[in-house]
Amino acid sequence: MTFAATVLTLYPEMFPGPLGVSLAGRALEQGKWSMDAVQIRDFATDKHRTVDDTPAGGGAGMVLKADILAAAIDHARVANPDAPVIAMTPRGKPITQARVRELAAGSGVIVLCGRFEGFDERIFEGRDVEEVSVGDIVLSGGEPAALMLLDACIRLLPGVMGAPSSGTEESFEDGLLEYPHYTRPVEWEGRTIPEVLRSGDHAKIAAWRKQRAENDTRLRRPDLWERHRDARVQSASGARHEDEDLGS
Amino acid sequence: MTFAATVLTLYPEMFPGPLGVSLAGRALEQGKWSMDAVQIRDFATDKHRTVDDTPAGGGAGMVLKADILAAAIDHARVANPDAPVIAMTPRGKPITQARVRELAAGSGVIVLCGRFEGFDERIFEGRDVEEVSVGDIVLSGGEPAALMLLDACIRLLPGVMGAPSSGTEESFEDGLLEYPHYTRPVEWEGRTIPEVLRSGDHAKIAAWRKQRAENDTRLRRPDLWERHRDARVQSASGARHEDEDLGS
Repeated sequence: MTFAATVLTLYPEMFPGPLGVSLAGRALEQGKWSMDAVQIRDFATDKHRTVDDTPAGGGAGMVLKADILAAAIDHARVANPDAPVIAMTPRGKPITQARVRELAAGSGVIVLCGRFEGFDERIFEGRDVEEVSVGDIVLSGGEPAALMLLDACIRLLPGVMGAPSSGTEESFEDGLLEYPHYTRPVEWEGRTIPEVLRSGDHAKIAAWRKQRAENDTRLRRPDLWERHRDARVQSASGARHEDEDLGS
Repeated sequence: MTFAATVLTLYPEMFPGPLGVSLAGRALEQGKWSMDAVQIRDFATDKHRTVDDTPAGGGAGMVLKADILAAAIDHARVANPDAPVIAMTPRGKPITQARVRELAAGSGVIVLCGRFEGFDERIFEGRDVEEVSVGDIVLSGGEPAALMLLDACIRLLPGVMGAPSSGTEESFEDGLLEYPHYTRPVEWEGRTIPEVLRSGDHAKIAAWRKQRAENDTRLRRPDLWERHRDARVQSASGARHEDEDLGS
């Protein structure tokens, strides 16, 4: 099955861009995913091809019109009917690796890229659009965020990554940051690779990596650590409930 | 002053990519920023131009070698001596709009893009590299993240954005999500623009927007809301201290 990426944008020439190179580019050539960049302006109804208007209530910038966006989304859904529609917006829910996995397991995605001040809010409910954010920063438009989201999906498609194991033991897959990596030379500018990694003792290496992943997450990302701990408590309590069911 | 972006990458052909178009593209042509994409492989020392090696302690994938990365960074620093070196990595500190503002106010940035399993950990201390993350997802490489970071910086450079006010009243600038936007038509598929925005009463509109920004942040991003509240408490207590100083 081909993962179908449809991007609704005022700058279709930005796509596939970096996704036409390397891993994603090869997968695109091999038909493992497809890319359709749709010009939102093609759905304007006046001769000036207007897509935006001034914000209700006043203020700087321009707002993308709900009626034009709806026409573009309706068009995209004809070719890509089962794909969720995702708008890249700083007001959205922060993207997670779990959501990326869900998307990559589906038939594709329709990504809506904003420009100017943003979207007319009514489009989100009016067309069941999922608002997604990638990092708490403001971009000139949704396009760089869309490229990032698509890259994260594409690498998970069947047959895209070289080593299948590369997808499972890495940051966020178990709610933790990944442990640090080292490679030759053993000594570089007076800094050596931790001795345990050179011991050949696989159990010790696994224990060290687990501890570093946990410690680094706790120190660097207390937010992730808290969620990871809560999930462990919940799954432990879930296990107890199952025991109780079995005992009853 | 020209903001100098140097990107160290195995795929220099990905740059400027989407940054060569639209707002960032025009600014690039006008010399408001410059782009130098440096091939890390040029700093390899063997005839196979090797940049990676197997992970110490075993495991899947390949790790970028500290000695090669160091040579690339040292080269980039000659041309761009005052720029911080930032590695895009999921183990890094989540990027913030405040950090983007700092970077945009500086002379430029050197962005290090990883591929494969990641970087030899020793490079971060060995070359004073700042580890930065954009969203808790895993990419095929740092390049899409670098494009996003640069886009966020470039739009803040002097003279790049059309309306100067566009930069101040938007998501994250005051630690809140931005309020929702609306534009014509007043009624679209039975959904109308909130009446207050059509009232012409600027004080009421400002109050509504403030309340929506606060409510939406509280509901959608409890993490941001908590930080915003803590900052307000701190600044209120700071203000009290100033009063005390004046009184003494």
